[in-house]
Amino acid sequence: MVGNKEKAPKDVTHVENVRLSENGHSIVILDQSALPNRTEYLTLSTLKEFYDAIFTLKVRGAPCIGIFAGYAMAVLASHVAQEMAPKIKNPEEFSKADFESFFGRLSALGEELNSSRPTAVNLSYAIRRMLGAAQAAYASEGLKSPEELTERLRSEATAIHKEDIEMCRKIAEAGLTLIKDGDGILTHCNAGPLATSRYGTALGPILLGKERGLEFHVFADETRPLLQGARLTSYELSKAGVDVTLICDNMASIVMKSGKVQACFVGCDRVAANGDTANKIGTSGVAILAKHYGIPFYVLGPSSTIDMATKTGADIVIEERNPDEIKKKFYAEPMALPEVKCYNPAFDVTDHELITAIVTEKGVIRPPYEEAFRALFG
Amino acid sequence: MVGNKEKAPKDVTHVENVRLSENGHSIVILDQSALPNRTEYLTLSTLKEFYDAIFTLKVRGAPCIGIFAGYAMAVLASHVAQEMAPKIKNPEEFSKADFESFFGRLSALGEELNSSRPTAVNLSYAIRRMLGAAQAAYASEGLKSPEELTERLRSEATAIHKEDIEMCRKIAEAGLTLIKDGDGILTHCNAGPLATSRYGTALGPILLGKERGLEFHVFADETRPLLQGARLTSYELSKAGVDVTLICDNMASIVMKSGKVQACFVGCDRVAANGDTANKIGTSGVAILAKHYGIPFYVLGPSSTIDMATKTGADIVIEERNPDEIKKKFYAEPMALPEVKCYNPAFDVTDHELITAIVTEKGVIRPPYEEAFRALFG
Repeated sequence: MVGNKEKAPKDVTHVENVRLSENGHSIVILDQSALPNRTEYLTLSTLKEFYDAIFTLKVRGAPCIGIFAGYAMAVLASHVAQEMAPKIKNPEEFSKADFESFFGRLSALGEELNSSRPTAVNLSYAIRRMLGAAQAAYASEGLKSPEELTERLRSEATAIHKEDIEMCRKIAEAGLTLIKDGDGILTHCNAGPLATSRYGTALGPILLGKERGLEFHVFADETRPLLQGARLTSYELSKAGVDVTLICDNMASIVMKSGKVQACFVGCDRVAANGDTANKIGTSGVAILAKHYGIPFYVLGPSSTIDMATKTGADIVIEERNPDEIKKKFYAEPMALPEVKCYNPAFDVTDHELITAIVTEKGVIRPPYEEAFRALFG
Repeated sequence: MVGNKEKAPKDVTHVENVRLSENGHSIVILDQSALPNRTEYLTLSTLKEFYDAIFTLKVRGAPCIGIFAGYAMAVLASHVAQEMAPKIKNPEEFSKADFESFFGRLSALGEELNSSRPTAVNLSYAIRRMLGAAQAAYASEGLKSPEELTERLRSEATAIHKEDIEMCRKIAEAGLTLIKDGDGILTHCNAGPLATSRYGTALGPILLGKERGLEFHVFADETRPLLQGARLTSYELSKAGVDVTLICDNMASIVMKSGKVQACFVGCDRVAANGDTANKIGTSGVAILAKHYGIPFYVLGPSSTIDMATKTGADIVIEERNPDEIKKKFYAEPMALPEVKCYNPAFDVTDHELITAIVTEKGVIRPPYEEAFRALFG
């Protein structure tokens, strides 16, 4: 299931979570399920390994899964090409039937990969895009061998990756206009390089600023119950040399009161047409505290997160998760009696009135959001 | 170090955390350090056992420690009486020297017990009170044998216990006027029977109401990093048959927004002259959320917690605790890198403007607090 360990890259300013190996026949990933205690890079080559990496959360974060799936399809295409090679008698004559055989096999592998996490939009998007690229390559671009098609798919996967880096960079640039050298930033959950590529979204301005010699003091909420803030955010900021202080979620109030926080940066899972924002559980509480203490509260994410079909936050259904995440997960023994009920919502909705601005790759969007979004999307 | 296990009492409406054994020669405690996974009653008889019970947090909660210390001094007095018995030739003639010997030995034992948790005010208060009772018994009340003195000390310890129960009952009665049958109550940390006696403070109205057939729906914040809400509050409410739902601290906002919370009840560690209140870390955040959602926020505790010598919350020094409580405690393995900094304040201060009322054994106190306190204390 897990591949071989590969030496960690020397540059730790950015966590490199996914990359294609040099020969293009495997993917090197940072095993996120082993963080923060073990920084392990795994080399994965087979469908089973790709599937398990997603299923067991070795690869996580919607954009990161999309990038991984792109490379996975490229590697799988190279396998199909190798399988087909002996069967194609005259390589000069790559028939329609040959392409259909290549495409059918790749589609089947993609379908299986897609079932590793059925609700992950970025996963199915990336697989569809890769298959579309294969069809276009054969039909319009005139590529007539499995090797050429595979090469084309490698380029497409690299494009998905580059586009995400570019989008994160643009979000980071826009967000960086909102803060200044020496500021304290409070963040909740994880919307950094591990979940995306290179800069991340909510952590983008901090990391881009760091590259430019600016120093920020980040307070990372540990983010119960799954502790993404402790396990991932404090990990990646620490590795990037950013000054980070880990706090429990219930310490955000005393930290804000101390005057050490000049802005809050959080990611987003879905933004409604009126600006109401669904994000990791606890985000709305951070926004209310920020308003109380007069601290600006910023939401950062790609504009694709803005869903004009969702009128307000009231239309967003909140996923409830297993109570054992609160009572048992990570612990040496349970922290509450078996008969004690838990309520474990995965997300909450932050009212648009609490949000100072929403930052996307298209720039900084200020209220009223409904009008601003309409102007943006035409 | 730990005594024998004793069968749990049948009545679980109230958690019985400390009691004198029937023969008066030992104390039966509920081992709070084993909660919630093991409900174990321990029988303790020696100074070493008493000391260790406090030191290792088997007995915890300031009022509970005070009650335990009262009984401990009574048991130790019985040991001293037994030691002295063979040495007193004529029991009819209990000399001043005999009393001084008795008192000196008991004082020394008390001093050692007091060192088990030097900053616990209730511990030193109870030990001083017990020694004072012994002196009064000999000097004023004319008790002239170790047995009579021991008996007198047992009564004094029982009085300390009864006074705490009475005070908790009065707080509970006053608090019960603030809520009605069917209400949802959000609480933070643990200020219930385990930490005090019988009703507790913040949980008092809920338990007293339960005795009278009222049903409340309690949301218990787990209260990171030490999880007193999960380990203790949800335990004791569940044992008392109260409907309790455990949540992570960062879920208080979504629960309040849902309309399921009609009041917040929290305890207090110190109340300043202007009403600013120091309590477990996270309390101020709960108060800010409550204000945002228009939910009344009540502080409950004995009037002895009001410290007129502390002008405002700014004069209260906040204890910072070990970062490992955030990164390591309770976990099977650490949740953050060793090099990641943590900020771990044990308490925060809730601004008096966020507090709807302060409930003591003297009744419900409403703002302006400074005037109300002065009227109360003369």
